[in-house]
Amino acid sequence: MINDVIAYMTEVGQRARRAATEIARADSGSKNRALLAMAEAIENSVDNLVSENAKDLAAGKEKGLDAALLDRLELTPDRIAGMAEGLRQVAALPDPVGEITQRSFRPSGIEVGKMRVPLGVIGIIYESRPNVTADAAALCLKSGNASILRGGSEAIHSNQAVAECIQRGLETAGLNPDIVQVVATTDRAAVGEMLGNQHLVDVIIPRGGKSLIERVSADSVVPVIKHLDGICHVYIDDRADLDKAHAIAINSKTHRYGVCNAMETLLVNAAVAEEVLPKLAADYAEKGVQLRGDQRSRGIVGDMLEATDEDWATEYLAPVLSIKVVDDLDEAMEHVNYYGSHHTDSIVTEDIGRARRFLREVDSSSVMVNASTRFADGFEYGLGAEIGISTDKLHARGPVGLEGLTTQKYVVIGEGHIRV
Amino acid sequence: MINDVIAYMTEVGQRARRAATEIARADSGSKNRALLAMAEAIENSVDNLVSENAKDLAAGKEKGLDAALLDRLELTPDRIAGMAEGLRQVAALPDPVGEITQRSFRPSGIEVGKMRVPLGVIGIIYESRPNVTADAAALCLKSGNASILRGGSEAIHSNQAVAECIQRGLETAGLNPDIVQVVATTDRAAVGEMLGNQHLVDVIIPRGGKSLIERVSADSVVPVIKHLDGICHVYIDDRADLDKAHAIAINSKTHRYGVCNAMETLLVNAAVAEEVLPKLAADYAEKGVQLRGDQRSRGIVGDMLEATDEDWATEYLAPVLSIKVVDDLDEAMEHVNYYGSHHTDSIVTEDIGRARRFLREVDSSSVMVNASTRFADGFEYGLGAEIGISTDKLHARGPVGLEGLTTQKYVVIGEGHIRV
Repeated sequence: MINDVIAYMTEVGQRARRAATEIARADSGSKNRALLAMAEAIENSVDNLVSENAKDLAAGKEKGLDAALLDRLELTPDRIAGMAEGLRQVAALPDPVGEITQRSFRPSGIEVGKMRVPLGVIGIIYESRPNVTADAAALCLKSGNASILRGGSEAIHSNQAVAECIQRGLETAGLNPDIVQVVATTDRAAVGEMLGNQHLVDVIIPRGGKSLIERVSADSVVPVIKHLDGICHVYIDDRADLDKAHAIAINSKTHRYGVCNAMETLLVNAAVAEEVLPKLAADYAEKGVQLRGDQRSRGIVGDMLEATDEDWATEYLAPVLSIKVVDDLDEAMEHVNYYGSHHTDSIVTEDIGRARRFLREVDSSSVMVNASTRFADGFEYGLGAEIGISTDKLHARGPVGLEGLTTQKYVVIGEGHIRV
Repeated sequence: MINDVIAYMTEVGQRARRAATEIARADSGSKNRALLAMAEAIENSVDNLVSENAKDLAAGKEKGLDAALLDRLELTPDRIAGMAEGLRQVAALPDPVGEITQRSFRPSGIEVGKMRVPLGVIGIIYESRPNVTADAAALCLKSGNASILRGGSEAIHSNQAVAECIQRGLETAGLNPDIVQVVATTDRAAVGEMLGNQHLVDVIIPRGGKSLIERVSADSVVPVIKHLDGICHVYIDDRADLDKAHAIAINSKTHRYGVCNAMETLLVNAAVAEEVLPKLAADYAEKGVQLRGDQRSRGIVGDMLEATDEDWATEYLAPVLSIKVVDDLDEAMEHVNYYGSHHTDSIVTEDIGRARRFLREVDSSSVMVNASTRFADGFEYGLGAEIGISTDKLHARGPVGLEGLTTQKYVVIGEGHIRV
């Protein structure tokens, strides 16, 4: 039982700072050994993980948590195997730390380059999924950062059980166990300390629902890498291949509903709307997607609700889709840039000029041509794994992988050079 | 006279948003034409600039501004020529916008790359130097951003006169004059609007003294690219070439005093301190630099003040230097990482292993070997020009040039690809 949370968090922060110096200069070999040893420790702890998780599940049921939350909280043997597999995948990724680029001799004679280095101490604040503990620890470790992980109070036993496996992995590899610290109290003051103390952590990454992320962003004096709404669009141009358009519109909406890169609004050029919409509407109906349209699309597909201004600005995360007929590319891009969340937007067109304009002028973290918005993902982009998808513009934009957890410093080498 | 500042700034913000879309897609040719036309307009307006500046100087004298402030405020024909030259230099720099890198085909068949794009609307808040108006406008324009510039109230006439030249340049090149807006009120509520309204600007860059930067950072809900202290160190290793060490220690401190990349603390290895310090002390004395030392350095050089713990953490920006004798590289790096401001630190050594360790383990935006700290500068690094030197870790670290005013978005190209 931790009585003085402030003192505890100060201690955690000081340990993390010292550990950050160590992990920053650790070689890839020992980082990978630690990750593989963690995976093994997790696989050898299935029984303990399941039984500790059962305590959280029982407490959750007693507290009346809803079914979706209980599902996210649950650690099955399959999910535990998935955690171990995730750790092995991170071990297999290239190490971003230490890369020196843009090296050149300057007219003064000094040599200047940029070296990729860790950020320092990363604070992760997350909700009920205990697998985030292993995922986040792995990405922070591989990128040379110390981490302070603070999971949801409803998952405290599960998270502490995962933390034990992480500790064992670090020890096996001869690394300082303070490199990954899982906060051992459910006291909310611990979160306040992480957000309010610039000396404790260098960056905060909240992982969870929108309300968590908004709360963390509002309260934090530390920089936050955050991911807010994904109001993604597909625009079907009048020069689209309509078979591709149909497939992309269906896939972007129905491949998965509760994800940030699912399409929430479909824009259709007026010249092809009568051909495209009835077939799409039939397929959406079959999959149980509720459609909400503007006046023109409702003129084509009869049984649609009316889309309000609020619909254009809503991330449904559900089998609901708003549809709007537009006159041209300009109207489509204006709608996307105004109502969208600058996450991911796709144009379907065979016209290379319009594709170029869409890629250039749509102000989103991912802009696509003839591809499903569902591709906006760290794995699909080749980052290997992602800690989230940033909708910010500064630092990291779009899927954030290992590189997004690093920064670059300038290195300068002279032979006694002075400024004249 | 602007009565309703909130309404005025809202209008400014809306104009900037529209202008940002235009300048984001402007080609390099028209941006460069605008910059060159601004330079010409400035050269043709020397009389007007000097006479408008005279109003600010007169008001400043009446208000009792100190001599240093009045000097920074003054626009001489030489300084005006310098402004025009700066605009031409920015025109000559390569355009960072639109560059596509890391393009590759993924296993799924989609093609993924990253496109460099402007940040959007940049707010600059600065103090008395009117030349910042031209500098900042040029860097924001070239990097494809709209800008809202808010200078100090003591420079209002000068800044408005420079703004006229900027407007003429934009018009000559056929660009929207709202791409650069110089706030026409000295009401402090305008700053509050820029810092407090996330929809007005995408990033704030304060330029000026530490108190301005601290105030802006504390009050801003918008991301800030900031530059705080420069507590820079030189460490003279026992394997240093002592002639190089002497030259670098003198140059780093005395080349200019009031700059962020001047050395504030000298660390000397105990094995060479008796050889190095007396000669350095003599040369510093000749240049009028006051020395403050720890016990061991005071044992070698008699007439030194005692350095307190506060000295190690102070950016003097003046002919004052603190000196400490250390036992080895580890003690030096510990001191630098603990007391420094993570700005610029240099080791003098001929030992390649120690040089490598210093470069890797010192956590500063610029780490140097055998070079004066005074090289930490956008021009010296080949960025062409800088809007500041960031001591933050996220987004931009070290000198911030055109690239630091941009971000990258993912571009994805398929041929009807969907997720399976």
